[in-house]
Amino acid sequence: MNSLYNYTLKLADDTLIMGQRLAEWCGKGPYLEEDIALTNIALDYLGQSNNFYKYAAQLQAEGKTEDDLAFLRVEKEYLNAQLVEMPNEDYAQTILKVYFFCAYQKLLYENLSNSSDEMFSALAQKSLKEVKYHYTHSKTWMNVFAAGTEESLQRLNKALENIWEYTGGLFDETEDEENLFELGIIPSSKALFAEWKSLIKKNFAEFNLEVPESEFMQKGSRKGVHTEYFGYILCELQYMQRTYPDCTW
Amino acid sequence: MNSLYNYTLKLADDTLIMGQRLAEWCGKGPYLEEDIALTNIALDYLGQSNNFYKYAAQLQAEGKTEDDLAFLRVEKEYLNAQLVEMPNEDYAQTILKVYFFCAYQKLLYENLSNSSDEMFSALAQKSLKEVKYHYTHSKTWMNVFAAGTEESLQRLNKALENIWEYTGGLFDETEDEENLFELGIIPSSKALFAEWKSLIKKNFAEFNLEVPESEFMQKGSRKGVHTEYFGYILCELQYMQRTYPDCTW
Repeated sequence: MNSLYNYTLKLADDTLIMGQRLAEWCGKGPYLEEDIALTNIALDYLGQSNNFYKYAAQLQAEGKTEDDLAFLRVEKEYLNAQLVEMPNEDYAQTILKVYFFCAYQKLLYENLSNSSDEMFSALAQKSLKEVKYHYTHSKTWMNVFAAGTEESLQRLNKALENIWEYTGGLFDETEDEENLFELGIIPSSKALFAEWKSLIKKNFAEFNLEVPESEFMQKGSRKGVHTEYFGYILCELQYMQRTYPDCTW
Repeated sequence: MNSLYNYTLKLADDTLIMGQRLAEWCGKGPYLEEDIALTNIALDYLGQSNNFYKYAAQLQAEGKTEDDLAFLRVEKEYLNAQLVEMPNEDYAQTILKVYFFCAYQKLLYENLSNSSDEMFSALAQKSLKEVKYHYTHSKTWMNVFAAGTEESLQRLNKALENIWEYTGGLFDETEDEENLFELGIIPSSKALFAEWKSLIKKNFAEFNLEVPESEFMQKGSRKGVHTEYFGYILCELQYMQRTYPDCTW
């Protein structure tokens, strides 16, 4: 079923690119323990993507491996949300991105844990425990920045201005996604968006932060349309496999 | 003759990577005319590299094209100096790098114009006119920064601290380079270094700048040893050819 393959790819691509971006911080975190925590989150995303790519390859049934899907597609074939492509910039933007993404993942996996698709249900349950931890971790930092100094608050608000309009793309639908919803395989992305927004509102009230009022969201996520940053991410990500085709470790 | 091939590659690789790096400024220059001037310098480097790669491919006689040599080698096969890999950072560092490189190229091509190798002599004469213009352009900027504000001087000195130790690598020798010198094909790189340093000293006295005293120079240039930045440059540079093998325009 092509719609299931696409949806699986969307989960895999989100976590791959999220992990790849976040790994740029490796060795450069604000202090040792946080450096390790952030790198661990990045690694966990890559682990999730690995599992989803394996399933996608199985669904595709063309004899490809998870590595083929991760490393050997062209730009337009990646179905991730544009949010995960955004640059890390400072620590406020990095954390804000992780926080938005974790809140999405938490709700998504809670729902997918009850999927009528056994693989989705198993992978979601497996990932949820870690995701909840990442969510708490990023939430703690959100609070630190919001209630910290004038500068930390100002940086957080700047980051919010930068990436808010990309959050909606997390909930954009892959082709024929509604079929999967009708079969009880996935939650409705629209309902998930509403849940996510209400969670963000609740948290932001605790942080004493304003949720941006703008309803404008960037289009193109889940359709292979990407930001200007994505090509550069792919260059680095694919270099080994492109330069040494079929190389193995 | 392998030594001639290697030396030609060194000329081609220097200008390719110099051009690739400088082109990062395209559309981001401090004002329109300077943006165009800098992009024009970058383009000129790429033009030079194209000519030298063509000659290298001819010397190699394996039926390869200039594009194969530019885009399809692995990291260790590039013989450029590490200096050209250094990040642009601010405009002071960008200009300083261009200035050091132009001063080197000016002396090199003046010498190569009398090469006993007809192709070298023709290419050097062809390139020299433009190189002299770039040299004057970067020298003018050097003067602006040195005699400008406290900040511009401080930035220039910071850039000097960053890249001085990479300048020596421009004059590191490729394998068996001394054969070429004995045949009157190329100038001695040691003599060129002395000429370059005396030119820099003369200019720096005009700029009222101190030439760094340190004699320490980074090793590995011209031997396929690269800085940590080079892998990222190659990723971007090679992406199209690696992703769509044998693609043509």
